[in-house]
Amino acid sequence: MQEEERVFNFSAGPAVLPVPVLKKIQEELLCLPGCGASILEISHRSKQFGEILAQAKANVRELLGVPENYKILFLQGGALTHFAMLPMNFIRNTNKSGNYLVTGNWSKKSASEAKTQGAVKVIWDGKEEGYVRKPTDSEINITDDAAYCYFCANETIEGIQYQSEPNVSVPLVCDASSEIFSRPVNIEKYGVLFACAQKNVGPAGVTLLIMRDDFVEMSGDDLPSMFSYKKLAEKDSMLNTPPTFGIYVTKLVTDWLKEQGGLKAMHERNLEKAKLLYDAIDSTDGFYIVHGNKEYRSFMNVSFRTRDEELDKKFQEEAKALKLTNLAGHRSVKGERASIYNAMPREGVVALRDFMLDFAKKNA
Amino acid sequence: MQEEERVFNFSAGPAVLPVPVLKKIQEELLCLPGCGASILEISHRSKQFGEILAQAKANVRELLGVPENYKILFLQGGALTHFAMLPMNFIRNTNKSGNYLVTGNWSKKSASEAKTQGAVKVIWDGKEEGYVRKPTDSEINITDDAAYCYFCANETIEGIQYQSEPNVSVPLVCDASSEIFSRPVNIEKYGVLFACAQKNVGPAGVTLLIMRDDFVEMSGDDLPSMFSYKKLAEKDSMLNTPPTFGIYVTKLVTDWLKEQGGLKAMHERNLEKAKLLYDAIDSTDGFYIVHGNKEYRSFMNVSFRTRDEELDKKFQEEAKALKLTNLAGHRSVKGERASIYNAMPREGVVALRDFMLDFAKKNA
Repeated sequence: MQEEERVFNFSAGPAVLPVPVLKKIQEELLCLPGCGASILEISHRSKQFGEILAQAKANVRELLGVPENYKILFLQGGALTHFAMLPMNFIRNTNKSGNYLVTGNWSKKSASEAKTQGAVKVIWDGKEEGYVRKPTDSEINITDDAAYCYFCANETIEGIQYQSEPNVSVPLVCDASSEIFSRPVNIEKYGVLFACAQKNVGPAGVTLLIMRDDFVEMSGDDLPSMFSYKKLAEKDSMLNTPPTFGIYVTKLVTDWLKEQGGLKAMHERNLEKAKLLYDAIDSTDGFYIVHGNKEYRSFMNVSFRTRDEELDKKFQEEAKALKLTNLAGHRSVKGERASIYNAMPREGVVALRDFMLDFAKKNA
Repeated sequence: MQEEERVFNFSAGPAVLPVPVLKKIQEELLCLPGCGASILEISHRSKQFGEILAQAKANVRELLGVPENYKILFLQGGALTHFAMLPMNFIRNTNKSGNYLVTGNWSKKSASEAKTQGAVKVIWDGKEEGYVRKPTDSEINITDDAAYCYFCANETIEGIQYQSEPNVSVPLVCDASSEIFSRPVNIEKYGVLFACAQKNVGPAGVTLLIMRDDFVEMSGDDLPSMFSYKKLAEKDSMLNTPPTFGIYVTKLVTDWLKEQGGLKAMHERNLEKAKLLYDAIDSTDGFYIVHGNKEYRSFMNVSFRTRDEELDKKFQEEAKALKLTNLAGHRSVKGERASIYNAMPREGVVALRDFMLDFAKKNA
C-alpha cells in the first residue's frame, strides 16, 4: 500500500533511491540478520558492520574499476566540507596552487572555499556566458605550480556535464556528486574523485572519496585528526564513528547497481532516459528552453524553462497533481529541473515526457 | 517476529534505540506521510523536512530548557570533529586559552585535538590516579586568559560521571555525548553543550550542539564555511545538506522522551537502573570490581571487571548466549562495560543483574 502512494520524485538531492533498496532497509530495520539489533544500533567496531564497510568498498572498487593504489573513504561533511579540506591538505603551506575550472554554481563555490586555504587559480570561468558549457581542452591552460586541476563533472543546478574528463597534464580532482555511478570513468586520470551520497548513492551524511595514495600522503600532518585525509585513511574511515547507516545504504545501492549490470548498463539506460526528455523538448519548437548548450546537456539533471515564470509555476503544479514532484529549478536559474538519477525508473521519465508534451500542446 | 529476535544490546555506541522509534521508522520508510517518498529521498529544503527540523529543535529546547539566547545546531563530524572546531572558533588567533579538565580518554583526546588550534591549558588531569574520579571544585583553578572551561560530563570508557557541573567563573564547554537527555541540566552555565547522537539520541552521523549566542558570534569569519559555527548557525544547520535521516530519528527519539515524562522522569529511571547493577556488584564481595571511585560512578556506562581476563571472556560469552550482548569493555580499560542509556529497558538491566549474580555465585 505504501508503495502505491509513492510519487515520481525528481528532487535534485536528497533524491530517489531504488525501491528494492528501501524495502530491504525496511525489512531489516528492527533486526539486521544475525545481529539481534538494528543497523542503527550496532557498533562500528562490530563484525557485522565491518563486513558491510568491506562490501561497500569492494562494490565501489568493482563498479568504478578503482586500482589498488587508491583508497576508498566514506567520510562526513558533504561536498562543501571537502571543498575546503582538499586544498587544506594539498596546497595549504606549499608553493603549489589549485587550478579550478569554474563551470557553474558548484565549482564556483568550491573555488571560493579553497581560497581560504591557499593559492587558487581559476583557469577557466563560464560565468560571462551564463554557465552553459564546459571548456574545451584547448581552452585549459594549467599553470606551472598546479598541484591539481579541479572540475565538477556535472553541474547539478545548470544541468551541464562534461562528456569526458578534461585532458590535462596534472591529476584531476573531481566533484562527481551528481553523476557518480552513472557511467564508467577512467579513475587513473584522477588524484581524487569525490561525491556526496545524497544524489546517486545513498542518504545525506556520507561523502565518498576515492583518493590516489600520493594524494593521501600529501595530506597535512599538522591538522586536527578529522581534517587530515592521511589520518582518516590510516584508520580506514573509522578514525571516529563513521555514518554507519549511510554506509549500509551505500552498500545496498551498490549491490543493486551490480545487479543492474554495472555502470556500462546504467550509462546506456541513463542516456536513453535523458534522450526521452530532450527529444520531447526539442520537438516543441522552443516551448521549452534548455539551460545549457546542446553538446553539454546533462543526462542526470535536465534543467529547462518555459517562456515565463507564471507558466513554469503552472507546469509544476499540474505535474505535482500527476505525482511528478520536485520539478522546481534551483533559485539561481529558475524554471524546471528534472533530476533523473540511476534510481529514477524509465516509467517515471516516460510519465514526465508525456506530461511535458501534453502541457506544451495545451499552452503553446 | 523480528522483535522477538532482538537482544539486550549494551553497546556503548552506536547504541540501543527505543523500539517504538524503530517501528515508526520502519513503518514510514517507503513513504513519509504526505510525501510520497522516503525520508531518505526528500529535499532538506522541502516543507516536510523543515517541519521535522523545527520539531527536533523545539523538542531539544523543551527537554533541556534551552533559553532563547542559545542556538540549537545539528551538524556532522562526530564529537572528534568538534574537539577541533570548538578551539578553532573560540581560541585560535586570540590571546585566550581553553582550560581543560582531563578525566579520561575522551577529554584527553579533546585537549589533544585542541592543541592544534591554540593555547590549551590542562588545569586538572586524573591520569596518575587512573581516571577514577572527577576534580572537586576546589581543585579547579581557572586561568586568567580562559575563554572557557572544558569538561566531559560522562567518560564513556571509564564509566565515571560528574554529579553536577563544575562551579567555575567562565562558561563551560561540555562534551555530553554519552549522557545527553539522561538528566536535566542547567544550560545557563554553558557556553556550549554538545553531543554526538549515536549514544543517547539517534544514529551516528549527527552531532547536536547547543551554543550561546556570544559563542556563536565569537566564531571565526576567516574559516571555510563548514568550519565556522557562525556561518552554520546563520543558515540554521542548513548551510549544506544536513544529515536529514539522523535529524528525523532525533526528532522521533525526543518525541519519545517527552512521552516518557521528560528528563526528570528519565533521570529517576536511569538512576534506578544503575542502582540495580551497582548494588549487585557491591553484594559480591569484590567478585566484580568497578573501575571508577564510588561517588563518581556513571549511571550510563557501568565499567567493571572480574579478577582476570579469562573470567571476563567467559562472562561475555555466557552473557551473549543469554542475549545480553556487547558487554566487552573498551580496550584501554578492558573488563566489562554495560551501557544502559535511556533506551535500555529496565528488563534488560534486570536480566543482566540476574546473570551477574548467578555468574558470581558459580565462579566465586
